[in-house]
Amino acid sequence: MSLTFYFAPMSTATITAVVLAELGVAHETVRMDIKKGDTKKPEFLKHNPNGAVPTIVHDGTVIFESTAITMYLGETFGVEKNLYPAAGPKRGEAMTWITWANVTLGEAVGRLMRHTSSWHPQDQQNAKAGEAAKADVEQRLEILNSTLTGKSFLVGDYSLVDTHVNSLVDWIRMSNAADMSRYANLNEWSKRCASRPAYAKVMAGAMG
Amino acid sequence: MSLTFYFAPMSTATITAVVLAELGVAHETVRMDIKKGDTKKPEFLKHNPNGAVPTIVHDGTVIFESTAITMYLGETFGVEKNLYPAAGPKRGEAMTWITWANVTLGEAVGRLMRHTSSWHPQDQQNAKAGEAAKADVEQRLEILNSTLTGKSFLVGDYSLVDTHVNSLVDWIRMSNAADMSRYANLNEWSKRCASRPAYAKVMAGAMG
Repeated sequence: MSLTFYFAPMSTATITAVVLAELGVAHETVRMDIKKGDTKKPEFLKHNPNGAVPTIVHDGTVIFESTAITMYLGETFGVEKNLYPAAGPKRGEAMTWITWANVTLGEAVGRLMRHTSSWHPQDQQNAKAGEAAKADVEQRLEILNSTLTGKSFLVGDYSLVDTHVNSLVDWIRMSNAADMSRYANLNEWSKRCASRPAYAKVMAGAMG
Repeated sequence: MSLTFYFAPMSTATITAVVLAELGVAHETVRMDIKKGDTKKPEFLKHNPNGAVPTIVHDGTVIFESTAITMYLGETFGVEKNLYPAAGPKRGEAMTWITWANVTLGEAVGRLMRHTSSWHPQDQQNAKAGEAAKADVEQRLEILNSTLTGKSFLVGDYSLVDTHVNSLVDWIRMSNAADMSRYANLNEWSKRCASRPAYAKVMAGAMG
């Protein structure tokens, strides 16, 4: 078995880094420098034509998009480790929340950044669109907060669903994209996720 | 087995409608009128707090996000019908392209619409952002076009990956969001997808 993980710090590849740390699967990490253009070089584009990380190559097959990678690694290595549901409706719930993080929550956060962050071209920004995006981010975080009412984790016991979704929430928290103080359930859940040794290991900079 | 499908025309629920038609799985369809507020009513929000379709309820378990639904229905009903890869690397490729459609292509298309369509608030639009979004849509369609070089379908024979991704491309085509004439491989592939009886059945308005 060979597994190569193309990683860059400060990207959604951090999600995959924590997923791999949870699974304890042997792999080679190729560290990319996005600013130096590593992800746009021909030898990388032949793996992922989007020029984006995370990307993994498992026994010669290329898989990209953090959503797909978490699900793929989950069903391949996570079921026997009780970190991902076996095939069945519970797996459908897992897929729902992993996808929701990138498609629904991620879209609103990306939109907020595009309209408010100094990292994005200011002549493409619109203040009213930024306000609308902020309201959407808050509404979506509240959906997650409500979903966690009376629950320790998103789908049953701790799973890669929590690893994945919490990584995105962490990113929102670190980028100050929203006032997180109003989401009590979400913050308690994040603390539970952060107490995992795999999380601590990645955050301590083993991958950074 | 019970399977309920919450559907609305002119939404990403069309993806799920074609997926279900391909699979030929017995289900009940609940038709929602988004403009009349059906998706924001409490009885629906208890299924999907996002108030969005598609949403399915399979034997009491709620699954939403079209990406997750295609993958879930694929692995549950599609493997034995040769419409979805069995567990393994090929399934990882399937997950990659299904996710890419909603996260990467879908994000750019959504952004283009927000900045250019009269359906979105004009005071939240920015012309330069619209131009940048158009360039991103074109670049992402070219990635799909290149990926289809020398291939009849995205992952091996026709599969729900094609069903899913082509539904989104169809939507781009119908909304005139991009000049599609430059993507020869993509257009030929869409014709192959459109020749499927299940596709024709849904497009003929059985679900519309």
